[in-house]
Parts: sequence; C-alpha cells; structure tokens
Amino acid sequence: MRASGLRSKDLLGIEPLSPDEINLILDTAEGFKEVSERPVKKVPALRGQLVINLFMEASTRTRVSFEIAEKRLSADTLNFAASGSSVEKGETLIDTAENLMAMRPDMIVIRHKYPGAPKMLAERLPASIINAGDGAQALLDAFTIRERLGRLKGVNVSIIGDIAHSRVVRSNIHLLTKMEANVTVAGPPSLIPAAVEKMGVRVAHSLDKAIDGADVIMMLRIQLERQGKLSFPSLREYYNTFGLTEARLKRAKKSVIVMHPGPMNRGVEIASDVADNPERSVILEQVTNGVAVRMAVLYLLGGAHLSE
Amino acid sequence: MRASGLRSKDLLGIEPLSPDEINLILDTAEGFKEVSERPVKKVPALRGQLVINLFMEASTRTRVSFEIAEKRLSADTLNFAASGSSVEKGETLIDTAENLMAMRPDMIVIRHKYPGAPKMLAERLPASIINAGDGAQALLDAFTIRERLGRLKGVNVSIIGDIAHSRVVRSNIHLLTKMEANVTVAGPPSLIPAAVEKMGVRVAHSLDKAIDGADVIMMLRIQLERQGKLSFPSLREYYNTFGLTEARLKRAKKSVIVMHPGPMNRGVEIASDVADNPERSVILEQVTNGVAVRMAVLYLLGGAHLSE
Amino acid sequence: MRASGLRSKDLLGIEPLSPDEINLILDTAEGFKEVSERPVKKVPALRGQLVINLFMEASTRTRVSFEIAEKRLSADTLNFAASGSSVEKGETLIDTAENLMAMRPDMIVIRHKYPGAPKMLAERLPASIINAGDGAQALLDAFTIRERLGRLKGVNVSIIGDIAHSRVVRSNIHLLTKMEANVTVAGPPSLIPAAVEKMGVRVAHSLDKAIDGADVIMMLRIQLERQGKLSFPSLREYYNTFGLTEARLKRAKKSVIVMHPGPMNRGVEIASDVADNPERSVILEQVTNGVAVRMAVLYLLGGAHLSE
Repeated sequence: MRASGLRSKDLLGIEPLSPDEINLILDTAEGFKEVSERPVKKVPALRGQLVINLFMEASTRTRVSFEIAEKRLSADTLNFAASGSSVEKGETLIDTAENLMAMRPDMIVIRHKYPGAPKMLAERLPASIINAGDGAQALLDAFTIRERLGRLKGVNVSIIGDIAHSRVVRSNIHLLTKMEANVTVAGPPSLIPAAVEKMGVRVAHSLDKAIDGADVIMMLRIQLERQGKLSFPSLREYYNTFGLTEARLKRAKKSVIVMHPGPMNRGVEIASDVADNPERSVILEQVTNGVAVRMAVLYLLGGAHLSE
Repeated sequence: MRASGLRSKDLLGIEPLSPDEINLILDTAEGFKEVSERPVKKVPALRGQLVINLFMEASTRTRVSFEIAEKRLSADTLNFAASGSSVEKGETLIDTAENLMAMRPDMIVIRHKYPGAPKMLAERLPASIINAGDGAQALLDAFTIRERLGRLKGVNVSIIGDIAHSRVVRSNIHLLTKMEANVTVAGPPSLIPAAVEKMGVRVAHSLDKAIDGADVIMMLRIQLERQGKLSFPSLREYYNTFGLTEARLKRAKKSVIVMHPGPMNRGVEIASDVADNPERSVILEQVTNGVAVRMAVLYLLGGAHLSE
Repeated sequence: MRASGLRSKDLLGIEPLSPDEINLILDTAEGFKEVSERPVKKVPALRGQLVINLFMEASTRTRVSFEIAEKRLSADTLNFAASGSSVEKGETLIDTAENLMAMRPDMIVIRHKYPGAPKMLAERLPASIINAGDGAQALLDAFTIRERLGRLKGVNVSIIGDIAHSRVVRSNIHLLTKMEANVTVAGPPSLIPAAVEKMGVRVAHSLDKAIDGADVIMMLRIQLERQGKLSFPSLREYYNTFGLTEARLKRAKKSVIVMHPGPMNRGVEIASDVADNPERSVILEQVTNGVAVRMAVLYLLGGAHLSE
C-alpha cells in the first residue's frame, strides 16, 4: 500500500478499486469541493508537477474538467491531441507515450477509443496513468449520490437507456454494487446485454417498473451519432417509451434524484422540465462534483508519486 | 454600484456603459499598460481566478489578446472552442454554458456569431460575462485616441469603409458620441446604413471630405471573405475611391492619426506606406493598448466579483 | 557580447554560433537536466516572461518539448497556430509577427516552412526569436553525444538516410564539424547532395562502411509522406540496404550509440529491436535532453534580454 492510501500508481477504472479506496477518493473529493467555491480557487498541492492530457479522441467536456482540476491543484498542464501530431504520421501509441514519458510528466490523463490503451501505458510508464474514459464519471456519480442521500449502501439506483453500448454504465455498476447499492437497469430489450444480471443488477422491463422505489434515476445519453444502428424505430418512439417526463417522475419517490452524464438530448431521453427541475435534477451538481473528484484522484496519485 | 466602480457584473458592449464607467476603464488601463513593459510582466490581481475563453467562432487574434491579459493578471485560463466539443453533438449554448458554469469559472469571455449570446449568458450565469466581439475594440480605440490626443471630447473622428456590416463601428459610434467626440463616416453609399445619422454622426460623401479636419482617421477592414457580395466593382476600384494613400493623407491635418482594427488588407483599404508611417499610424499601438484595456476590464469585473 | 554569454538575442540556427557558445548552451543544459528529475520540476528563472509558440506548420512533438521547457522555467506560454488565425485571412507573416510583438512577448519560438522566416522576424522584432525548426535538434543531439561519450572532439559520427532533404542533418553537420567531430554520411546516392563533401564530411558508399569505426550512428527518418518521390524502389528495399538491424549493429564498435530524431518508422530505417536496445539506443534520452537543451536556450536568451 502506498503512503497515499491508494494501492496502485494508476487509475485505470473502477474494477481494481476496493471499497476503502473508493471511500478515500470520495472523502478527499469532499475536502476539495470547497476549493472551487473560494475566491482564490487554488491549492499548491501539485505545484511543479506536470500533467499531460493525452486525448486521442475528442472529448472537450472531460478534458476541460480535468484541466480545471489540474490548475486548481497548481499543476502544470499540457494538452496533446491526436490531430497534427506524430500519431498522424503513423507513430504507434506506445512510441508516442514513451516519447511523452521521456519529457518526465508526473501523470498522464488518457482518453483513447481502444479500451485497453490506458492499461498498456500503465504497465510501461513510471508516470501515473489516469483513464479519462470511464472511472471518473462513476466516481463523481457516486459522490453526488452520497452527498445527496448520505450513503451508498442500500440506495436503489435505476439506470435507464442504452445499457449495452454505454461506457459509463459498466463502471457505475461495478462501483455501485461494490458499495452495496441496489442497481436496476431498463431500456429497449436489444440494448440490455444478456450477461448484465451476472453483474448483480436487476433488469426492469419498463421505465415505470424501473423508477418504482428508486432513490436515484440515472438517465443515459442516446448516441444520436449512431442513430441508424439504433434498435428502436424513432427518437419520438424512444421518448414515449423510455424518456423521463414530469408525469413519469411523479410516480417515483418524492425524494428521488435524477442524474445524467451529459451532454443531454432534451426531448429524447429526458424532458427539459425534468432536466431543469431544481429539486430533483442534480445534473449540474454532477459537473461541479466532477472537478472535485478529479482533483481528489490527481491529488492522491500525485501525492503517492511524491511520497515514494 | 459595485465596489469596483462598474455597475454591472458583465461587459456586454458599450451601450450600457456611462461616461464615468468608460473613463474608469480607460484610467485603469493606463495603469496596466506599464505592466507589459516590465521585465516581470505580471501582477497577482486575479490569482486563483479562472477565466474561460469560450470562442464559438474562430478569432485567434482576439483570443490571444485576452489570454495574454488574463495571464498578466495571474488568472488561470482555459480555452474552449466549438470544434470537437459537445456543441458539435448538438448541445445548446445554454447547456454548454451552464455546464461550464458548474465548474465555477469567475469570468467567461465569449465570442459567438449570434450577437445576443453574451446577454443570454449574462442573465443566467453568476460568472462575469465579457463580450469578446465588440466592446473591447471600441475601448482600446478610445484609449489610443485619448493617449495620443489627450482627450476624447471634441475630437473629430472619421470612420471609413463598410459602415453597414462592421461589428466594430457601431460600438465605436456609441462610445465616441457618448464621450462627445464628433464622428463622421464615409464609404460606398450602399454600405452606409440609412439610420446612421440618427446615431449622431455626420455622413461624408467622399474620402477627401471625411478626412478634411479629422484628428483621427479610422479605416475599416474590407471583408474579402464576402467579396462576391460587395457593393463595388473591384478591390482596385475600392482602393482608388476609399483607400487611404500617402497622397490623400497629405490633405489631412498634420497631426492626424491613422487607426485600423486589423487584420489589414494592404493595398485595399490602406496603402502600405500609410500603415507603416511611424508618425501617423498608431495601428500597432492599438494592439498594445488592447492588452491593457482587456486587463482593465478583467480586473474591474474580477475585483467586483470578489468584493461582493 | 551580452551579459549572458550569447552574442545574439536570437537562436536562428547553428551556423552563427561559436564553439564557446555551443559549449555554454550544453553546459547550461546539463544544469537544467536535473530539474526535470525533481519532484517539483520548476525553477522561477523566466517568471513573468511571455513566450509565444508560433507554429505555422504542425509539429506537435517539438511544440510540446518547448512548451514543457517554458513551463519548467515558469514562463507564461501562448500557442499560436496558423489555422483559424488572421493568417488564413491572408495576413502576411510580418504583419502577424508585428501584431504579436505589440503584445510584448519576450520570446517567440517559430516554426515555418519557409526557412528564412525566423531571420526575417529576428531583424524586425525586439523579442528573442528561436527557430524551432533546426537548431534545437542539433544541440540536443550534441548534448546526448557529449553526455554519453564525454566529448565531441574526435568522435566519429555517421549519419544515415535522406541527407538531401533532411532539415536536421545540415544543422548537425555544422555543429559537429565546428566541434571537431568526424562526420560521415551515407544513403541512396540520389539522396546525397554533391556539395556535401565541401561541408567537411566524408561520404560512405554503404551502410556497412559508414558504421565501421563509428562511435555514433544517427539514423534519419524517411519521410513516408513523399514516398512517391523517393529515389528507391520500395520501403522494403530501403530497409534491406540502409535499415539499421541488430545484425548490422554487431559489426559496429561495441560501445556505439544509436540515435534517431523521431518519429521513427520501425522496420523502415531502423529495426524495432535496435530502436529498443537498452544499451545502444539513446533515442528516448534524446527526447529527455531536448527539454533540457530548450530550457538552456530559453534561459540564456531570456536572461540576456533582462540584463540589457
């Protein structure tokens, strides 16, 4: 175990984390959340450390959240995108990464369409590798639930949408079941993988059944980009069957909270008035918490690196 | 009134500013101009504050000037461009902005092709919104005139070119008339809007008439991009009729100064030797002053934000 | 001579440097190399100075190395690329540069396809101009040789590949001959310029002859981008004739080191096992040294600027 309390130098995803490690990250994030509310939004924790944001696929929102987290910890940051780089000249990811490593970054935040890429780098490079693709979203979702409901254990979380293709949903299931929350999923039958029940989640066969008794409703983004391949006739059809409207929300617990990883398709998976409902929706709170959770991860890994 | 002396938390344009506020900005800029001439070009005024540069249309030069101003005030800066972002996935400007706000920037500098966008954000977000499109240019032009001629009141300013489509010219007219300068405009008849005289400016019907008696000649950029839609037969024709040459400049006051917002089309609206005339041209001085004026605006709004 | 020990305010290339100046840069880099190995990888040398990275052609790797060097010296950095800028609106390089100068950068690092561009700027602008195209690579190569072999004088360096079109090779020949190293070149006959022997180098007519007795083998990148125009039948053919394999390396001195400016084409100019040979290959060390050498150049020019 490292001095910082995390066993690994890397954050590759949720699976390798123990419940204690998850709690450590969430507790640390709680401390950092307040930094973003100060007039001087900065602590010197990572001063003189270099973090490279290696984004091999575009994801401005995630990059921005990491970059803000890095700056609030006083790290030096450097953005490296695939376009215009040696990558376009045919350089392999390993060569690119080893070249970056030779410039002595302390951490590399990586987003890559190949899910095994972060692990590949983590095994080869002494720098801490942070997978920007999955883990952070599940951690910030858990942080938001814990902050609102006071706990994760025993909380009923229903996840609605394209369960099969969402990157985020698998991380969320890992994290929530590990922390003993009860997870239900719902969506078009063709978008529910057969194996999902083996992960310890319940499958509901309609939206109404999924939200009945839920403490948390987590809506997923429908990827309009691959609409041609969608397994339902039209977006309107989808909205009618799985879109979260105020009318449907009324049948849920009065205290239910509504989450969405963003960006939202208003009027597709979620009605605008639900998204903007000041009492139920915690969607923007998730974004705020995303910075705090990323600060916590960077701090814990950066600290570990230094204390070795 | 805020502690800082500006009434609004935002700078959306020139129209809402009082003459006192304009003077405050120009006086503050005077103090900051000297910072850029020091070996250590930095003051700690905005340390720990985050400024997001939200550029929804490309404008490198303006972005660079803001970014330098932000860094000289020790702010953390983050550039967010439309391409590659959620915007491309169809997210609305409001959703993008609310997401950015959730990460707690102190100020957002926005450039957007829809002129109402900055106001829309200013009404919804607690952060200070700075319209990067119009206001700053008029302020830096006024700063330059005041610095060179010692005053704005009573100064004769002639603006030459495409009066109808220039974003900058309207802001300049608002500011200059507010400060009791005398404004004359000239250009191809089809590019002079009928309503311009209602704004308190005089229309001259030739370049010679416009520069006769002028203390300041402000040349506008001809947008070559929309040349097909231009209302004059050719660029050469334009140069012959409205291009500022040394020969024409000789008919102006000996003390006249020549301004241009850049980038210039040498040999179209302005002759190269006029642009580079070390005594008459203040075109590069405008760029230098642009950093100082942007520092002043950021400082005054940032200060206001903190003192509330 | 300036206080800093460099005679010029600019680094335009290797040719104008004296052996003493080259030694000064390499000695200074030696001191800076250690900074990148510290937990806090930062010195305050250029605090409050602004460095603009003006990259008019894409070269992410070089830009990243400069940007890291600038941040480790605590400079403020600003990246300016051609795309989306006034350059695309037809502005000349001189106008772009004079506009940037008006914002008072201390240094401009420039990469431009026209080789005369850096000199053009250096003559017109008071800021220090650093040519990102050539010089730095030759300096970091020399640094790496000196660090490994203890000296440059009398060292046998063989450079293999497209001698005619490589930007780097000319700078390397200038630097190495100036420091009294012995330089041999080899490559396809059509890619060896006739005049190369006048630069004081020996031409070898095969790879084996070139590496016989060499202390350093420097492989050049084959520009796959212009493969159509290449003077050899195929990449495989090239590999068979001029590719550096383990078998060929065995015929060289046991102590030989292998260099490559990157990015590598594995299996074209260099075999993978040679590139990754932990005893012979110093290719990643070159990248590490690149940051140190760039820090030295920025520090020496930045210091000069301040001490005037």
